[in-house]
Amino acid sequence: MSSAKISRVVVTPLAFADPPLLNVVGVHQPWALRAVVEVHTDDGVLGLGETYGDETHLARLEAVAARMPGTDPYDLNGLRRLVAEVLATGDGGAGASFGGMLDVDSASDTVFSPFEVACLDIQGHRAGVPVSDLLGGAVRDEVPFSGYLFYKWAGHPGAPDDEWGEALTPDQVVAQARRLVDGWGFGSLKLKGGVFPPDEECAAIEALREAFPDMPLRLDPNGAWTVPTSIEVARRLDGVLEYLEDPTPGIEGMAAVAAQSPLPLATNMCVIAMEHLPPAIAQDAVQVVLSDHHLWGGLRRSALLGGIADTWGLGLSMHSNSHLGVSLAAMVHLAAATPNLTYACDTHYPWKTQDVVEPGVLDFVDGSVKVPTTPGLGVTLDRDALGLLHEQYLECGVRRREDTVYMRSIEPGFSPRTASW
Amino acid sequence: MSSAKISRVVVTPLAFADPPLLNVVGVHQPWALRAVVEVHTDDGVLGLGETYGDETHLARLEAVAARMPGTDPYDLNGLRRLVAEVLATGDGGAGASFGGMLDVDSASDTVFSPFEVACLDIQGHRAGVPVSDLLGGAVRDEVPFSGYLFYKWAGHPGAPDDEWGEALTPDQVVAQARRLVDGWGFGSLKLKGGVFPPDEECAAIEALREAFPDMPLRLDPNGAWTVPTSIEVARRLDGVLEYLEDPTPGIEGMAAVAAQSPLPLATNMCVIAMEHLPPAIAQDAVQVVLSDHHLWGGLRRSALLGGIADTWGLGLSMHSNSHLGVSLAAMVHLAAATPNLTYACDTHYPWKTQDVVEPGVLDFVDGSVKVPTTPGLGVTLDRDALGLLHEQYLECGVRRREDTVYMRSIEPGFSPRTASW
Ligand SMILES: [Mg+2]
Ligand SMILES: [Mg+2]
Repeated sequence: MSSAKISRVVVTPLAFADPPLLNVVGVHQPWALRAVVEVHTDDGVLGLGETYGDETHLARLEAVAARMPGTDPYDLNGLRRLVAEVLATGDGGAGASFGGMLDVDSASDTVFSPFEVACLDIQGHRAGVPVSDLLGGAVRDEVPFSGYLFYKWAGHPGAPDDEWGEALTPDQVVAQARRLVDGWGFGSLKLKGGVFPPDEECAAIEALREAFPDMPLRLDPNGAWTVPTSIEVARRLDGVLEYLEDPTPGIEGMAAVAAQSPLPLATNMCVIAMEHLPPAIAQDAVQVVLSDHHLWGGLRRSALLGGIADTWGLGLSMHSNSHLGVSLAAMVHLAAATPNLTYACDTHYPWKTQDVVEPGVLDFVDGSVKVPTTPGLGVTLDRDALGLLHEQYLECGVRRREDTVYMRSIEPGFSPRTASW
Repeated sequence: MSSAKISRVVVTPLAFADPPLLNVVGVHQPWALRAVVEVHTDDGVLGLGETYGDETHLARLEAVAARMPGTDPYDLNGLRRLVAEVLATGDGGAGASFGGMLDVDSASDTVFSPFEVACLDIQGHRAGVPVSDLLGGAVRDEVPFSGYLFYKWAGHPGAPDDEWGEALTPDQVVAQARRLVDGWGFGSLKLKGGVFPPDEECAAIEALREAFPDMPLRLDPNGAWTVPTSIEVARRLDGVLEYLEDPTPGIEGMAAVAAQSPLPLATNMCVIAMEHLPPAIAQDAVQVVLSDHHLWGGLRRSALLGGIADTWGLGLSMHSNSHLGVSLAAMVHLAAATPNLTYACDTHYPWKTQDVVEPGVLDFVDGSVKVPTTPGLGVTLDRDALGLLHEQYLECGVRRREDTVYMRSIEPGFSPRTASW
C-alpha cells in the first residue's frame, strides 16, 4: 500500500463564461481561465486540484506534471523541490504565474498548490477520510461564505445582457445583493470597489447597510486610494464595515492607514506570501489576512498561515478568484479545519454558470457549504463538463487574464486606478 | 475504514535509572520518570506516544485518556478541545505539567502532545506510511544527533559509581566526549553548563575544541549568567561555538545579550510556546529556537514552529529531556520531515540504560538514526520491558522531577544558580 506511486498527471486548461465584473485594473474578460490537474497513482487512485489557467502558469504546470510520474503522493517536500528545480531550469522566468493585480517573488507556491491538493485528495482516498481530517479535523460542519458584490455592466459589449444586469449605482448594488441573499442565503456581503470615486462606493455601502441592517459588510477597493483617502473612508464607515480590505497599496501604505483607522484592515494584496508576514507584522500594517491556498502554496502552507495568524493575533479570512468546484471543495475543507478562520470566506462561485464536478455536493444553503464527509476532497470530475470547458478554452482565444487590456479595447483611455483617489 | 474510533487509551508511568547529571537547578534524581500512552482503535490499530511522567501530568493524562474512547483518531482539533475542557474543569490548576526549569502558561500543549503523536502513529499504520510521510515526507534518510555532555558525579551518593564515572574537570569532560564520539559516532557536541563558574566551563569548551578541532560545539548554562557575563563569554567563545544556548534568563535578558553577542543565541527556555514567539522576534532575542514536540504540542505544532522559524529566518534545532525510544522515534520522524532543521538534534538517549521499544530500529550509526520507513512511528512496544519499567516506577518512590530538592538532600545549602554568575 505504501509503495503506490504517481503514474500519470494530466493538466487540462478550461474556460468558462464570465460576466463583465469591474475592478480597479479594468473588467473581467468574457472568459475566465482555470486549469484542473489530475494526479493518478499506479494503484488506481485519482487526486484533483484546480488552479489559474494563464498560459505562463500552464507551461509551468505541464513541466512539473511531466516529471511527477514515479514520485510518491506523500512526499510533498520532494514535490516542492521538484517544482523549484523545474522553475529554476525553465524559461518561464520569475514573477507570478497568473494575471490580475498580485505579484510575488516566486511562482513556486502557485505552481506547487494544485499538485499538493491533488496529493492530499489521494491521501484522503487511501486512508478513507476527508481532506479536512488530514488537516486536523473539521471544527465546523459547514463553511459560511460571503456574498460577493460587483459593479458591472449589463453585458459584455457586443453581447446580449447577462442574467445579472447592470450594477453601477447604489440601488443596483442593493438589488444585486438582494438576489445573492435570496438565492444563496449569504449572511455577509462584500463589495468589490476601486471602480468609482470613494464617495460613491461609500454611498453603496451605506445603502447596503440600510437595506440589510444586521449584515456584516466589507469593502475592497484593491488599493485604489491614497493614504489620506483611506483614513477618511475608514472613519466614515466605522461601525458599518467588519473590515476594510486593501484601501491602499503596499505594506507601508497600509501601515500608515492602520495607524489612524478605527476599522481593522484586511489584505490579499500586500501580504500574499510568507515573505510578507515579517514586515507586515513588524509594522502592524494589517489586522486580517485573507488566505488563499492557490496563492500560498496549498492546504498545508495555508494551515501554516493560519497558525501564524493565531500566534500573532491576526484575523484570518479567505480570498477568492473566479473558480470552479474543485477549488471550492479544497477551500471548504481548509476552512473547516482552521479553528481561527472565523470570518465568512469570499467566493466568486455564484457568478459562474458551468462547473466540472458532479452536482449535489457543494450546494449553498443559508450561505454555507456542507463539508464533504466522503474520502478525499469529496468531489468527482464530470468528464463531459470537463471536455466542454476545455473545448471552450480551445475556442475562446483567451490565453491570460488581462482585465486592463480588455478594458482598453472598450475604453481606450483607461488606466488602472491604483492609489489614484 | 473511516469509521474507526478510539476504543481504549492506556497511560503507563515508567521509571528508569538516571545518572547524577548536574545542571543549574541541581542534579538528576536516581530515577527519571516518563509515561507511555497507548491509543487503541476499535479496528485493532495501536498508536504510541511518550511524555513526562510527573504526577501532576499523569493525572491530567489520565483524565484526558478516560474521555478519548469513541473519538476519531483523525480529529486532532477535537482532541485539542477535549484537552482544554479537561484542563479547565480539572483540579490540576495552571502551570507546567512537568518538573525542571521551564514554565508555560498552559499545560494544554504538553498534555495534548503524546496523544497527538499516538494518533499520527495510528494514521500512519492505517495509510501504510511512516509518520514522516504524514508530515510531508522525509528530506533526509537519517537524522544527526549531537553528543550531550554533562558534568556529573561518579555515582549517586550512597550508590556504587556508574559506568560513566566522574566528570567535573575539563579533562574529564573531554574523556566523556571521547566515549560518546567513539561509541555513537556523534559529529557535534553539547555541554550542559550552569554548574561551575563560567571561566571553568569556558575552559572545558576550549579543551573540547583542542581535542576535537573540527567538531561543532554548543554550551548551555540554562540561564546561569547575568547579561554582562553572557556577553563576555560570547566574545570569548566566538568562533568556537556554533551557538550559545540560554546564557541568561528571559526574553529581555537574551535580547540584551544578543545585541552585543558575536555568537547566535539559542533557546529552549525563553521561547517554549507559541505565545513567546512574537515578543522574542520583535526584540531579536534569539537566533535559534530549539523545538521539542513534547512541549510545543505535538508533531504538527512543531511543524508550525518550523514554518515560523523558516518565515522569520530563525535557526531551528531540537531540545531533549531524558527519554525512551517512543520519543526518539517521534523526534526522528519530525526532524526528518523538517527541511530547515539543519542543526544536529539534542538527545539524552545514550544516558539511559533501558528502553521500552524492541531493539534494532533506532540504533546510532555515525551519530545519526535512520528514519524508520515502516508504517507509523516504526517502533514496537516491548511488553516485558514496559512492565519492568512500570515496576520500577511503582517501587522507586519518585513521583516528580525535583533536581533542586534532591540536590539539597546532598548539599543542604544549594540554591539554583540562575542569573547568579
Ligand atoms: Mg481583495
Ligand atoms: Mg537548553
